[in-house]
Amino acid sequence: MARTQFIKNAWYVAAWSSEIIDAPQLAKIIGEPLVLFRKTDGEIVALSDTCPHRFAPLHMGKVIDDVIECGYHGLRFGASGKCVHNPVGNGAIPSAARVRSFAVVERDSLIWVWMGAAELADPGKIIDFPWLNDRDNLCMTADHSMHQSIYYELIIDNLLDLAHGAFLHPTTLGSEAVMKGKTKIRQDGDRIYYDRWNPDGEPATLFTLTGAVQPGTRVDYWNDMRWDAPGNFYLEVGVTETGCPRDKGHYMGSVHLLTPVDEETTIYRWILFRNFAKSDDGITKSLEALVNVAFRQEDEPMVKAVHQRMAGRDFWDMEPLILPGDKAAILARRTISRLLESEADLLLTDPVLQEV
Amino acid sequence: MARTQFIKNAWYVAAWSSEIIDAPQLAKIIGEPLVLFRKTDGEIVALSDTCPHRFAPLHMGKVIDDVIECGYHGLRFGASGKCVHNPVGNGAIPSAARVRSFAVVERDSLIWVWMGAAELADPGKIIDFPWLNDRDNLCMTADHSMHQSIYYELIIDNLLDLAHGAFLHPTTLGSEAVMKGKTKIRQDGDRIYYDRWNPDGEPATLFTLTGAVQPGTRVDYWNDMRWDAPGNFYLEVGVTETGCPRDKGHYMGSVHLLTPVDEETTIYRWILFRNFAKSDDGITKSLEALVNVAFRQEDEPMVKAVHQRMAGRDFWDMEPLILPGDKAAILARRTISRLLESEADLLLTDPVLQEV
Amino acid sequence: MARTQFIKNAWYVAAWSSEIIDAPQLAKIIGEPLVLFRKTDGEIVALSDTCPHRFAPLHMGKVIDDVIECGYHGLRFGASGKCVHNPVGNGAIPSAARVRSFAVVERDSLIWVWMGAAELADPGKIIDFPWLNDRDNLCMTADHSMHQSIYYELIIDNLLDLAHGAFLHPTTLGSEAVMKGKTKIRQDGDRIYYDRWNPDGEPATLFTLTGAVQPGTRVDYWNDMRWDAPGNFYLEVGVTETGCPRDKGHYMGSVHLLTPVDEETTIYRWILFRNFAKSDDGITKSLEALVNVAFRQEDEPMVKAVHQRMAGRDFWDMEPLILPGDKAAILARRTISRLLESEADLLLTDPVLQEV
Repeated sequence: MARTQFIKNAWYVAAWSSEIIDAPQLAKIIGEPLVLFRKTDGEIVALSDTCPHRFAPLHMGKVIDDVIECGYHGLRFGASGKCVHNPVGNGAIPSAARVRSFAVVERDSLIWVWMGAAELADPGKIIDFPWLNDRDNLCMTADHSMHQSIYYELIIDNLLDLAHGAFLHPTTLGSEAVMKGKTKIRQDGDRIYYDRWNPDGEPATLFTLTGAVQPGTRVDYWNDMRWDAPGNFYLEVGVTETGCPRDKGHYMGSVHLLTPVDEETTIYRWILFRNFAKSDDGITKSLEALVNVAFRQEDEPMVKAVHQRMAGRDFWDMEPLILPGDKAAILARRTISRLLESEADLLLTDPVLQEV
Repeated sequence: MARTQFIKNAWYVAAWSSEIIDAPQLAKIIGEPLVLFRKTDGEIVALSDTCPHRFAPLHMGKVIDDVIECGYHGLRFGASGKCVHNPVGNGAIPSAARVRSFAVVERDSLIWVWMGAAELADPGKIIDFPWLNDRDNLCMTADHSMHQSIYYELIIDNLLDLAHGAFLHPTTLGSEAVMKGKTKIRQDGDRIYYDRWNPDGEPATLFTLTGAVQPGTRVDYWNDMRWDAPGNFYLEVGVTETGCPRDKGHYMGSVHLLTPVDEETTIYRWILFRNFAKSDDGITKSLEALVNVAFRQEDEPMVKAVHQRMAGRDFWDMEPLILPGDKAAILARRTISRLLESEADLLLTDPVLQEV
Repeated sequence: MARTQFIKNAWYVAAWSSEIIDAPQLAKIIGEPLVLFRKTDGEIVALSDTCPHRFAPLHMGKVIDDVIECGYHGLRFGASGKCVHNPVGNGAIPSAARVRSFAVVERDSLIWVWMGAAELADPGKIIDFPWLNDRDNLCMTADHSMHQSIYYELIIDNLLDLAHGAFLHPTTLGSEAVMKGKTKIRQDGDRIYYDRWNPDGEPATLFTLTGAVQPGTRVDYWNDMRWDAPGNFYLEVGVTETGCPRDKGHYMGSVHLLTPVDEETTIYRWILFRNFAKSDDGITKSLEALVNVAFRQEDEPMVKAVHQRMAGRDFWDMEPLILPGDKAAILARRTISRLLESEADLLLTDPVLQEV
């Protein structure tokens, strides 16, 4: 299997809601250029970005009365993708004058786009990130977007991996306490949980420095990850005094959303939040800075070097050595492979999809 | 048909006469690197730029006594392409020591090179641009050369297209008056005329601002284009008082010459001239600035974006939507296809050409 | 034969001894990335730079107790290439946890690595450069390394070629005296000698300016080259008073070592030394500057232009014109072809090598 395949029948994050501005915007997802814009009623429109006339990128045009006007010859396309105005000649609109329209849902401060067969678009399948709506009870960083020259599965490998912390993040994320404890991995459909539980120990520096807990306190510590295909993560680290229930504890959550641009590039969106010391902006800034160092100066150079060393070769063709710590990442890779295969099967057997 | 084909049996512009300086110069045309230099008798020589010995680019050498000396080992080649001097060993010149020589004609301030079979080079087929010699009666801008990362057929599409003006050039070239009137398209061999005629109207701002006509005057307005394969354009816009003959009117002419460097690059040469307000340098500079904005800030980014979006795919394979305004450009594309096909036929049937 | 083949069964220079610092270092040779580091006992280790676990470049890790630790997950590999430590899980080391180890020899201030089948690695085949150890009797420049975007055979062509001096180096290396005299070319196995002998003449400016000989003295002059496959050169130019034996004379020697990085890049290492005016630092600096101009401003742009003009095509497929001055370079090209062919034969017939 070539590594350049992407799951089509999936909801991908096209943008943070906060990234959508007045001008139409390009969002390239799994190789497909889309143009996004917001209508006056607030709804987001996602269309193929390529004008069917002369292949001009539609995002170079402008939005007029809730439809997008091509900047080259003025054809206008509405939310359905149909051409609604032709300024040339007698103004007749050929039936072929249309672009593909993509299902869009705005939820949890995110713009989700369905890249697969329109008949299969089911908003019920969008992964929920309810924390992103809970801005009253949580203290949040800004919405972050990183452009990385890395194939997205390598970033999944990196995130679903607790073993690299001590080596790649010795002074930022990989403290001793994070590495201790018992891990549990379980899969539920296309979702994987990777949890670590360390009862009755010393709190990690991260928690004492941020005031989540007093130094010297004995704590139960958890580090839980949740992955949903193709690239949607929720991570949580938290502490309670030993024996207390979790909902009495202090935690930091983070959401990590990977959108493959193409086989060489991924947009990595993230946000971090906590349920303690919520009015302390200094802590927010410090955490943001710490994560930025860990992501941009530690993870990204290494994972990009792996991407470059692989030079387009398939992961399994390179016969990787499998270690016990790789279990969660391998489960995710198998899940992606299974989804790709079932997508191929679907295409072979479904008469409606074959026409798409 | 792959889009990377070029018409070989054609005269291409290799340079403005003004671009030829003392040093030998590289001119890459339809993928073929040439070296150009001027002999002491004024004649221009065009040779393959690759030394047959060690493939050094000859333009890195120097011209000595009207022949070019390779900068690596000193072989010298004359106008015929034959090696005339070998400084190595006993100085014997092997018969294989030659480079291809190309027919060159300097005419109308332009250096024309025939890229096809030498037997077919006919200076009578060079497209005439007599205006370029009429510097007494016309006021001209400088000779311009633009390097564009665009396949040349997309620039033809753009030039043979009156419909994009209102969208891409709303404040520069695409005024309302330009868009009005009746158009007439006709083909004569490998030449296409695309004319617009707007009788008895208000003069466009362009003409009142440049003093070609007084505001309020009723005028007949013409906007005529002439294209010759592969990429040679003459454009003229002019006005007369309503009902007067054209030769009593004021006009601005422009010559546009496209030289394909390779499938990714084109040299676009242009010049603009007028038959009124000829001593007003301010008008010349303003027109030059206006055209530069229209070409470099409006046309080039859009057409380059189309080039990039096509990503090497064939135009027809992408199934473009055809609109009435595309007629002239489509005729040009068909003309180019026909010339390519007849060139292929010629190669199949002509025994002399088969040996080339 | 594609030009992208490289001789595998050969010793290549991976570094000057002086280039090895405390941190592990990347050395890419004939397309293969290696990591080099020095153990506490002084021995150099050369391993494949790609961790078998997740393909992280090992040179991004660090050396701990004479073994290299991967910077991503902490696997450690010793000099034999075997994994000696796994920090993950129960610490078990799978037998597949190993990287390829390369034979290394440090000799004559150079790190030599055998890139072929381990069974064939014979230190006796390393080309000797005894001058590099004779720092008491010779005055040497610094160890130089140049990164050139040129295929290595084109640099061999350039070095084994006395004919280009007058054209490419008219004011630096190619003085008249250098061009005179009788040349003799002979081959001995995979070694080629290319010598020029000019008895009883005026000394070249190079020798009078550096004080090797007084102006006006009659001298015997020699210019000797020695090439060993794949890319190892010793050059010597010297003078004696007419009729005196060479060991009474003054000479400048230079060593040129070409390490192909891949088909587009070569590391060119060089050093220059002399047996006269040994305490005059000014002369050393002047010679170094002269050679730098000749190599970087004269040879490199031309040979790089040839490389680019060839655009990946095979030298022989391009049907080069062969001139008498090309004899030595052609012999070297044939030697390389012969070595490649015998390597292919070996692979076909040797059962041990087939398993590699």
